[in-house]
Amino acid sequence: MKQKLSIVTLGVESIEKSKEFYEVILGFAPTKDSNENVVFYDMGTMQLGLFQYEELAKDAGVDKEGSGFRRVAIAHNEPSTEAVDALFAELKEKQVTIIKEPEKVFWGGYSGYFSDPDGHLWEIAYNPFTDLT
Amino acid sequence: MKQKLSIVTLGVESIEKSKEFYEVILGFAPTKDSNENVVFYDMGTMQLGLFQYEELAKDAGVDKEGSGFRRVAIAHNEPSTEAVDALFAELKEKQVTIIKEPEKVFWGGYSGYFSDPDGHLWEIAYNPFTDLT
Repeated sequence: MKQKLSIVTLGVESIEKSKEFYEVILGFAPTKDSNENVVFYDMGTMQLGLFQYEELAKDAGVDKEGSGFRRVAIAHNEPSTEAVDALFAELKEKQVTIIKEPEKVFWGGYSGYFSDPDGHLWEIAYNPFTDLT
Repeated sequence: MKQKLSIVTLGVESIEKSKEFYEVILGFAPTKDSNENVVFYDMGTMQLGLFQYEELAKDAGVDKEGSGFRRVAIAHNEPSTEAVDALFAELKEKQVTIIKEPEKVFWGGYSGYFSDPDGHLWEIAYNPFTDLT
């Protein structure tokens, strides 16, 4: 199995509401393969996908019920602490739900968290050791 | 915000058990930044991270409790239906939990699902329209 991720799919309540968040607030551009039922965003060598969560459960053949912490976080790295702060300032201005204000963290970086409309956790981090921006 | 994912972190019960799964069964190689508390795998332009789930909750400042469907799926694409089948055969031989056998799916591709030791869902797919292998 090649060491490669192709897509991370987030199950969402409403594609329309999520598109508003990812495209208007975060500014992402959907791929041409996107439609009203599924949306993809190019994110480097892979894509972020949005799919209605009950449909995602059905596709995997699992029960759709679930609650609380999902044990998953998506990280987007920025090139400096200032860039992290600037992004948080912009997100706050746009009424995005801030989960944790950016701060120096135990591993030597600087990070904070926000959530998308479905509670999916995004970490915004500056990592002085590894450049994944 | 640049359209780029840096890391997808999976919260796990046991780093040791997860390393066994990802490194011995799936064959992934950890980065040199990995240690006994956090593990990273290069996955193209981004990394997959493993972190103890209670520590992940603490890092984000959220409650660690949760259950059921997580509304997230990670997809790894293979270049053909035969490659998908071959990978599933290998995973089954290695006693990996198969969630759904690969089959032709509604969007025109071919896919199945397995789960890691913590129940994180992996889709293995052949996509005839977009090459993300």
